[in-house]
Amino acid sequence: MGNVKVQKLPTIRRLPTYLYKLSEMRKAGVSIVATPELARYMNLGEIVIRKDLAVTGVTGQPGVGYKVKELIEAIKSYLNWDNSSEAVLVGAGSLGSALLGYEGFEEYGLRIIAAFDASPDKIGTEVHGRTVFDVERLSELARRLQVRMGIICVPAAHAQEVADRMVAGGIRAIWNFANVSLSVPDDVIVQREVIAGGLAVLSVKMNRKLAGEEDAGQLG
Amino acid sequence: MGNVKVQKLPTIRRLPTYLYKLSEMRKAGVSIVATPELARYMNLGEIVIRKDLAVTGVTGQPGVGYKVKELIEAIKSYLNWDNSSEAVLVGAGSLGSALLGYEGFEEYGLRIIAAFDASPDKIGTEVHGRTVFDVERLSELARRLQVRMGIICVPAAHAQEVADRMVAGGIRAIWNFANVSLSVPDDVIVQREVIAGGLAVLSVKMNRKLAGEEDAGQLG
Repeated sequence: MGNVKVQKLPTIRRLPTYLYKLSEMRKAGVSIVATPELARYMNLGEIVIRKDLAVTGVTGQPGVGYKVKELIEAIKSYLNWDNSSEAVLVGAGSLGSALLGYEGFEEYGLRIIAAFDASPDKIGTEVHGRTVFDVERLSELARRLQVRMGIICVPAAHAQEVADRMVAGGIRAIWNFANVSLSVPDDVIVQREVIAGGLAVLSVKMNRKLAGEEDAGQLG
Repeated sequence: MGNVKVQKLPTIRRLPTYLYKLSEMRKAGVSIVATPELARYMNLGEIVIRKDLAVTGVTGQPGVGYKVKELIEAIKSYLNWDNSSEAVLVGAGSLGSALLGYEGFEEYGLRIIAAFDASPDKIGTEVHGRTVFDVERLSELARRLQVRMGIICVPAAHAQEVADRMVAGGIRAIWNFANVSLSVPDDVIVQREVIAGGLAVLSVKMNRKLAGEEDAGQLG
C-alpha cells in the first residue's frame, strides 16, 4: 500500500523539475522568480504552477513572485529531501548503471550506497564507484547497512524474488523499474516506474496534435 | 506545445500497465476481466479504474467486467499504438542502451531503428542490434528514413543541440530524458521524462506512511 491522494501525484512528479530550475536560478544569483517565468519553463499555465507550489505551503507574493531560496527549502522539506536517504540498487545492467551514474540523485537527497547482481561477471566489479555485491547477500547487507530503500532494475521474472530479499533485509520502500506488480507486506511501499508511461503520453499528444486539440506542456 | 488535458495525464501514464496486464491475460486464455481484479493489480480503487478505462470509450458490463480483447484494442487505438511508429535514439550511453534493450517497446508500437552518438568509441558499433551512427549525420538520416520521433538520452549540456538537429531532420515528436527544458518550434511536441519524479512520489509516500495517511497504490 502507498499513501498519497491520486490527484496530487502529477504535482509531486513535477516538483523535482521546479527544484532543478530554482537551484539553477539560485546559482545564478536570482532571489525572486515570477509565476509567468516558471509557467514558461514548465510549459504549463500559471494556475497550475500556483496550485503545484501551494502543496509546499509557500504562497507567492501577488505581482512579485516567489522567493527562490524559501521555495527550494519548502519543496525539499515537503519531499523530505533535506535529509539524505540511502538506498541499495539491484540489477547492474544498463538501466541500473544509468541510475548509478545519475548525478542528480544526491541533489534529491538519495544516495545509492551499494549495488547487487546475480551475474558472476558483474559481482565484485565497480559501477560508477559502487561495488557490485552478490544478490545472495542482499538481505544480510541491507540489514547491516540499515538501508530502508531499495531500487529494482532486474528483469521482470526476477523482481519478486529480489523484493522478497529486500523485505527480509528490512527495506520498507521499493522503487520498482521492473515491468511487474510486486506482492509485499502492507507496511512496505512500492513505487512502480513504467517507462512506457511517458511514451503513452507522447503518443496521445501526437494524436491530439494531428487533431489540433489542447495543450499539456512538456511535462506529464 | 503539447496537447492533452493535464487532468488526463495520470490516466494516460497508466494505460501501458493495463495493456501489459491484459496482454498477459489474453495469452493465458482469459476473455473477461472484472473491475476488482484490475483494481487489485493496479493497486487503485475501482472508481479510478472505471474512469481510466472510460477514456478509451469502452465501458464494462456491470457485474461482469470488460472484454479483454476489446479493451486491448481500445487502449491501443486510443494511444495510436495499433500502427507502429519508428524512432531514432541519440546518446548510446547506459540509459540509451537500456532503452535500446527494452523489449516492451515493440509491443507498444515503438520501433527504434537507429542510434546516434558523438563518441568515436561508440560510432560504428552495434547496441542491441542497432547500429550507432555519428550524431553529425542525424539530420540527414532522420530525413532520409522519414522518422518522426526522436529520443534524447544525452547529457543536459548537449540536449538542445541534439533537439535542433532532430527538428532540422524533420522530427516532430521528441521524448527527452535529459534534465533540461528544450526550445523547439510550436509544431514540435516534447515529452520530458524526469526520472526523479518517481523518486519524489516515493519520498512523499514514505513521509505519509510515517504519518499514517491515505493510499495511492504502486503507480503514480
